[in-house]
Parts: sequence; structure tokens; C-alpha cells
Amino acid sequence: MLVRLLIKFFQFILGKKRINRIAINFLANRGPNRPHAWSTLNDDYISWQGLTDRSYFSRLLSAGKFSQDDALGTARPPVDEVIKLFPAEPGKQVLSKKSTNLFPAFAQYLTDGFLRTMIFNAPADGEDASPKDDRKRTTSNHEIDLSTLYGRTARQTAVLRSMNGGKLKSQILHGEEFSPYLYDEAGKPHKEFCDDAGKLILDEPLGIKDISSGKPTLFAVGGDRVNAAVQVMAINTLFLREHNRLADLLAARYPDWEDERLFQIARNIVIFMFIRIVICEYINHISSVPINFLADPSVAWKANWNRPSWMTIEFTLLYRWHSLVTETITWKGQSIPSTDLLLNNKLLTDHGLVGTFVQLSANPSAKMGLGNFAAFLQSIEQKGILQGRDNNVRGYNDYRKIMGLSRARSFEEVVGVSTADEPAEKARRKKLAENLKRLYGDVNNLEFYVGLFAEPSSNDGPIPQLALAMVAMDAFTQAFPNPLLSEHVWGNEENRIKAFSQIGQEQIEATNSLEDILKRVSKGTNGQFVGMTQENWEPS
Amino acid sequence: MLVRLLIKFFQFILGKKRINRIAINFLANRGPNRPHAWSTLNDDYISWQGLTDRSYFSRLLSAGKFSQDDALGTARPPVDEVIKLFPAEPGKQVLSKKSTNLFPAFAQYLTDGFLRTMIFNAPADGEDASPKDDRKRTTSNHEIDLSTLYGRTARQTAVLRSMNGGKLKSQILHGEEFSPYLYDEAGKPHKEFCDDAGKLILDEPLGIKDISSGKPTLFAVGGDRVNAAVQVMAINTLFLREHNRLADLLAARYPDWEDERLFQIARNIVIFMFIRIVICEYINHISSVPINFLADPSVAWKANWNRPSWMTIEFTLLYRWHSLVTETITWKGQSIPSTDLLLNNKLLTDHGLVGTFVQLSANPSAKMGLGNFAAFLQSIEQKGILQGRDNNVRGYNDYRKIMGLSRARSFEEVVGVSTADEPAEKARRKKLAENLKRLYGDVNNLEFYVGLFAEPSSNDGPIPQLALAMVAMDAFTQAFPNPLLSEHVWGNEENRIKAFSQIGQEQIEATNSLEDILKRVSKGTNGQFVGMTQENWEPS
Repeated sequence: MLVRLLIKFFQFILGKKRINRIAINFLANRGPNRPHAWSTLNDDYISWQGLTDRSYFSRLLSAGKFSQDDALGTARPPVDEVIKLFPAEPGKQVLSKKSTNLFPAFAQYLTDGFLRTMIFNAPADGEDASPKDDRKRTTSNHEIDLSTLYGRTARQTAVLRSMNGGKLKSQILHGEEFSPYLYDEAGKPHKEFCDDAGKLILDEPLGIKDISSGKPTLFAVGGDRVNAAVQVMAINTLFLREHNRLADLLAARYPDWEDERLFQIARNIVIFMFIRIVICEYINHISSVPINFLADPSVAWKANWNRPSWMTIEFTLLYRWHSLVTETITWKGQSIPSTDLLLNNKLLTDHGLVGTFVQLSANPSAKMGLGNFAAFLQSIEQKGILQGRDNNVRGYNDYRKIMGLSRARSFEEVVGVSTADEPAEKARRKKLAENLKRLYGDVNNLEFYVGLFAEPSSNDGPIPQLALAMVAMDAFTQAFPNPLLSEHVWGNEENRIKAFSQIGQEQIEATNSLEDILKRVSKGTNGQFVGMTQENWEPS
Repeated sequence: MLVRLLIKFFQFILGKKRINRIAINFLANRGPNRPHAWSTLNDDYISWQGLTDRSYFSRLLSAGKFSQDDALGTARPPVDEVIKLFPAEPGKQVLSKKSTNLFPAFAQYLTDGFLRTMIFNAPADGEDASPKDDRKRTTSNHEIDLSTLYGRTARQTAVLRSMNGGKLKSQILHGEEFSPYLYDEAGKPHKEFCDDAGKLILDEPLGIKDISSGKPTLFAVGGDRVNAAVQVMAINTLFLREHNRLADLLAARYPDWEDERLFQIARNIVIFMFIRIVICEYINHISSVPINFLADPSVAWKANWNRPSWMTIEFTLLYRWHSLVTETITWKGQSIPSTDLLLNNKLLTDHGLVGTFVQLSANPSAKMGLGNFAAFLQSIEQKGILQGRDNNVRGYNDYRKIMGLSRARSFEEVVGVSTADEPAEKARRKKLAENLKRLYGDVNNLEFYVGLFAEPSSNDGPIPQLALAMVAMDAFTQAFPNPLLSEHVWGNEENRIKAFSQIGQEQIEATNSLEDILKRVSKGTNGQFVGMTQENWEPS
């Protein structure tokens, strides 16, 4: 409470813009800035390839030394044992008091654009087994570039474009605009998305080998995870429509612009809008401090942390927020398993974009933490543990130290036994500390990935302390160095117009939330709530 | 003279390291820092691809608007007329009073590593005509990475390595170490440098289609221009030997290191040595101020200009220093045409590495400037003019302005009529100014590329004013952001050892000139002069 008052006082004295600058610089400077010395290519020494080959993750901290035996009381207890810490007891998943389901949906859509471990669809029987997954490597462009919408490569972008009026390809279903279908009724990809040899130019949707019924509902989009869940496709559809709306707007205002220029300027505008939503809506939702972060690009222009992004292995791990996903979701009054929303867009096309956003906003997300994961995500969590081990990521306490936090001295301290506000919660945390002790022995053995989610989350911030510090640093130091926000583009009046146009700049500045866009690309929300932060909920 | 005294005074007061920091920051900050808003992809607007696709050059200034007609008195007079300004009168090429031939040799070797316009060998009759040259695009890695020695790509590096003891492939000729031959006696490339389809993995030497006799003497190296001249191959051979010497040294000191680590650490050491020579020997040779620039990486760690390199089209143009090349060269007392040194390594292998360095150091380079180019380079200069025009590079005066220099008000001012120290030189400059006026009409029409070399160079600095200001900015802002020199690699004691090893660090710090290395990789220079700056020459 005192902190809140103090911040309000300083905001009054210094002004909101200056407080925003001070706060962002503080958060961005908590860990080491780029360029990082280490990548996931070499553990033992620094090589030129490691310093330049961006198909490997970079590292915040150099690799640790671990013995490879999976034994209790070591830094690498058996994965089968560790994984038992994750799921919620059946029917007892605790829900968030702050976040709606739109929050994890946006988190997934955002991170799928750049936290991209090199994963390939498991080959069907008889197919060539290569290429293989490689948890040391990434297919990321290392930018917030909406690759989910526009594709990762120029070739992908080309097949997603209509090549007319600057628009992306789309189709009308039940009177609403959606992406075109990727597959025909027989399950074959449409030729327009394939090369001459019939191979998909777009990335194949992940998990496609395991499904049958939903396949004809899948859309042709930029990202391989966009079709994974209705929630994520809803967000992509929002930006698809916004892109096409902007292309029309630009074409009307600048009638001499050809398709290419209309497309490129609309894309620039949409990317900046997306970054504004990341900061103004999403980060402010995550934040537990009473500062309203502003998307003011100038905070970064002279900052020493303004170096081009390069995804770290730690960022990849700490951003696995599957524990926000609920076992079930209430859809128009009916409780349905969340698995029904996977790899099937029928719910979205049936209920429309506004209907889907309203449903997502009416459901709370799950509360983040060990012992609260939806059971169906167990195998996915196992991959997180293995990715940390494959890359010899150092222990939890090493990361607390590098982020300027105190090292935990006991497992009780990690899980926050003393700060639990109810006896039942205290008992739950005590039990968790005991389990961790049994597995790892010494708190300095605790794995980074497990420690992140062993920490408690609070009611006014959905993310535990270490993950919050790291995600804030990563978010700001990734979003602001975006080349569109640079001193020479956004910060230069003449170039700003050449990148966004006058009307585009106005559209960007009128965009602070998903709801702002939703209202523009639909017949309106009719007063229904759309947002990440639950209404009518007051912090204790 | 006064400036010299003042600088000496401040060096005494503040110390050499601090003066070095102030001077480098001043020179690096003269023009706009990166990321630049514009690239050679789009002239009219800023696109995401333009901001991210590094196969295009970036731009210091946005493109100018030009009418395309080649008419006298415009910004684009006929190229056939402009090119007449370049060559020296037969037999009257003026020589430098400061620079030896080792200076242009090093300049070419250095810049061929990263100023790489996308140029392909002209197809022989009947061959597929694609791919084509594209003067808007580049094959650069945008780093000082010695791609001339190690190749531009991981595949190229792999075929250049012996895969044994960390070494590069080499052969012994007349008792000395050189790169292996690229072609067999029949002119076919050796299989080890080709893929399974028989296609060269290494870049084919430029100009190979036009030669016959020298082909069997060409070496398998990283860069496509290294074979272009004996001078350049001599420098590559120096670093080849140094790499292999260091690999042996490391293997002796660290007997448990395998080939891979030995190779990577030796490569890191050689790249840093190369950067030290760029700063300590080469830039200090170019510089006309009496500051001895130091290769102190820490000057850049907090600097706002420390952003990853991305070659600009302006850097590419201003670094075309062909006018330093002499028509003839005196080799062991015999005057031979410089064209005899092209695409033929026999002179190098016959006279040995030390012999070649001594000959290069015994010959003065030509003095830079219009009216002083070797005649055989005329068609190459024409390409420079055309590259400027293809990319709509703005005029000479616009670049003076952005570099903080005054705009020239007349052609007389450009060529420095009033500062000529001899009547004959004054008359020559007056004539040049008249010719420029006839071609361009107005001084604001003067092309960047032509204006750069229309300015006079002085006796104590080989490069004219605008080119010098720009090359200093580019050199420092490209060399210091190299990832090996970063705060987290060189600046971190633990990581420094992981990148270079203890012995490697000592070797780096003992390297300030090409001569330092030459002595290590030969039987010594026997007291003969090796350097870029002519001995026994005193400034007037």
C-alpha cells in the first residue's frame, strides 16, 4: 500500500512519462544486456558460430556442469518423478482471481511468434524421419514481427497475400471474414500454399498428424501453432481483419499506391499496434506495480539495452505458461473440456469472432504454479524439463542472483510457506517444499524450470517473482528495439510517415487493447466484456 | 601544427586511453547511428523487409529523386563523359608520399571481406545466364569475420578445414606454407571443394572466365577476390599461416582439446588480431591527426553507436579506392605492369611471402584522386558510378552536410583550388573544377561517388576529407561492435579465456602490425622494411 502511494506521489511530481522511462529502464537493466557471450551451440567455449548463428538460442548464463545420472537428491532427479509435481488434483484446479482466459490466449499467440524451438511434426509411418526436433535450436526471426499472421519467410508471406489492394487472403464464413482454409475436404493442402512439388510452403500445423475430424476447419496462416487452439486463432483472425481493414483505408486515402506499398504499410501499422497491445494491455495486466506502462518508443533510444533481440533459452523456458490453461472452459453456459478447442476452428466460425472473444473474457484462467496444471498438458511439461536439461541450463538460484534477487536458502523459502495467507494454502506449500527437498536434496540443486513455477503467484499479479522479473526484462528489451520503433523510423517525423503514413500513425495511436481493434472489425461488442483482467474483482 | 601541440597537451593531461576514447566517440558519432531507417530495397517507403533483410545494403540517407536522363548540367551527366575524369594521363600517375603498396593491398583484403556487392561471374557462352549481378544487394555477413580466409558460410569453412589439429588445409611449395590449389592441371576444381554434383562450394574466383594461364596457380580460399591479385593473396597467406601456427600452439598447451575447439579458438584469436591491425596499423596510417588510435574494446561498451553492423551503400561506394593502385610496380628492380599481378599467384610462390611483403612495402601507392587512376581500372570505376545511380544515392553535398561538414558552394571549393601548394597543381585543380562544372552545372548536382574523389588528398593523409570522415565512422562503428570485442566476451575475464584462452590473449596483445605476424610465420624479414607508411619520409 505504501509503495502504491509512493509511486502515485512520484508520478505526480515527475510526470507519467518520466516515471515510465525510469521504471522500464530499471526493469530492462536487471540482467545482463545483449550481445550475450554464450549460445546453446557450445557449452565449453565461445566460438564465432556461437556468436553469430541465430538458429541457436542465446543464453543469459553460460551452461552449468551436470552429471547425467537421474538420481534423487541431485540437480537432475528422475523426470518421471519431477513431472508429478505439475498436475492439479482432478477437479481441484485453482482459478485466477485476476486473469481471464484471454490472457493465456494472447500469451500463447505472442510467444508462438518468436519462441520457436525447432520442432517438426513427428513423421508418419514410412516417411523420412528427418528433419528431427532439436531443442538447442530455433526457427525464430527473433523479432515481434507477427510471423503468426505474415509467415516467417518472404515465400510464406507471398502465398498468404492476395496480391490485390495490399490484402491478405481471406474468406467469408457466416458473413464474417476468416483466413482461407488450408486443406480441401479430402485433407490435401490447397495448391496455392504449396510449391511446384506439392510441398507446403507454409509451416504445417503442429500436431496435424494426430487429428482427423478438425482438419478441414484449419486455416492457412503464418504460424504453425495458430491452428492449435480456437483461442489463438481468434486473435490471429482479429489481426487478419485489421490488416485488411487498414489496407482498404490506405487505398482510399492514397489511391495511387499499388498493392505492394499498401501491403507493406498496413503490415508496419499492424506490427506496431500489436506491440502497443503487448505493452499497454498485456504487460500492464501482468504487472503487479501500480504503474501504467506506456508504449513510448523514446525510452529505448539512448538505452544501453537497446540491442537487437536474440531469443535466449531461458526466455523460451520461463515463458511456458501452460499452467494458466484450464481443464475446462464454460462456453455459452456449457462446461466443455479445453481439449475440445484444440486443432478445430469450428467453434470460432460457429460463434463468430465477437462471440469467441466474449466467451474467453468470461472465463477465468488457471492460477500459475506447480500442482495446478491441466492434466492433458503433462507430456508438454515434460518437454520443458528436458529442454532445460538438454541445454544444461543452470539452476534456479543462479538466475535469482543474476536478476538481483536473493538466493533462496530453503525450499520453504522458494514456495513461500511463510507468506501463505490461509492454513490450507500453507499446508499445500509445505507439502510442495517437502516434495522438492525429496527430489533435489539441496535448494541449490533446484532446476530453473521447476523453480520458476514452484514460487507462489499472488492475487494481484499472475506471474511469480523470478519469472516476472525475467519476463519484464525480456519483454521490454525485445519490444522496444524493434526496428519500426527506432529513433530513425518512429522518432523521425519524415520517416515515420514513410513507414506508417499519416492515417496509419493515427490508427496506431488509437489502439491500446484488443477490444479497440475488435470493435473496428466487427459489428461491435454490444456492451459485452472483452479483456484480460476480470471485471468486478478488487485486490484484497 | 597548433592542433598537434594541443592534442599532445591533452594526451599528457588526460592520458592516452581517455583521449583515444574521446576521439573515437567523436568520429563514430559524426553521422546517424544504426539501425538505419532505409535500405536499397525500397526508395519510396519503409517496409519490414527493408528493415530486416540484410541481403540489401542499408543506407545512411534515404534515396534521392532523379530524372533518368543522362544530360550535361544535371545530376546524371553521361557516364561516358564522367568516366573520362578518372584516368591519369599516360605515364603521369602521381605517387603517394606517405603510403606504400601494402596499404591498398590491405584495404582491398579488408573490404573484400564485407563490402560484397552481389556480383556473379559473367556466364560463358551457352551457360545459364542467371544468377545476375544485383548492385542493390550484397552477399556480406556484415562483420569483420575474415570471410576471405574462413569462407562466408559454414559449408565453405568446413571444406577449407583439414579437420585435424584445428588447422586450415595448406600445402608446402618451395619450403613455404600456402593454401591448397583450387584447380587441377586440367583446370577442373578439386573434388574436395565441390558438392556431390561437382559444383564448387567455395565462391568461384571473380574474373576466372577471362583467364587461362594463371588458373592452376589459384588457391582454395574463403573469398572470391583473394585470388584477384598477388598483393591480396599475400595477406591471406599471412593469416593462413598464423591460424595454423596458433592451432599448433594451442594443441601443445591444451593437449585435451579436440580439432573443433582448436579451430574455433584459433579463429577467434586471428579475427581479433586482424581487428587490432585494422585499428593500430591501418587506421593510424590513414589518419592525419597525431593521435595513436588504440584497439581498446571498452571505448564502445556504453556507446550509443555500438549496434550490429549492416553495410551501407555509401560505405560500399566510398571504399572503392582503386585510385591507390599504380600502373606499374617495381619488383626486384624490374618495372612490371600491375596487370601482371592479377589472377596469378606465381610471383608469390616464386618469391615467397617475405619477399612479396618486402616488394609491396618498397613501392609507393598512387595518390588518391580523379585524374590519377590506373587506366586498366576504367571499366571498374564505371561500375562504381552505375552502382550509385542504380541505388539513387544522394548528392555529394548532402553527405557533407550529414557528416557535419560545410556544403561546398562551388566546384573550385570541392577540388581545393585555393589550397593547392604549387602553381601546376593549382592549374590542374582549376581544370578539374571546370570539367566538373561542364558536366554537372551546379555543385549541388555533383554525384557522391565523383565528389568523394574530386576532393584533394594531402601529403600526410592519403584520403580526402569527406571520404576520411565517413570511413572513420564506418570503420570504428563496424570494428568495435564485433561480438568478440563485447563487454561480455573480451570484457569478462572468465569468458575472455573461454573465447581466446590465456595464451591466445597474450598472442593478441603482442600483435599490432602485419610485420609482427610476418616475423612469426617466416624465417624473419632480415631487417628489410615491411609496412604501410613509407620510411624516410618526413611531413612538410
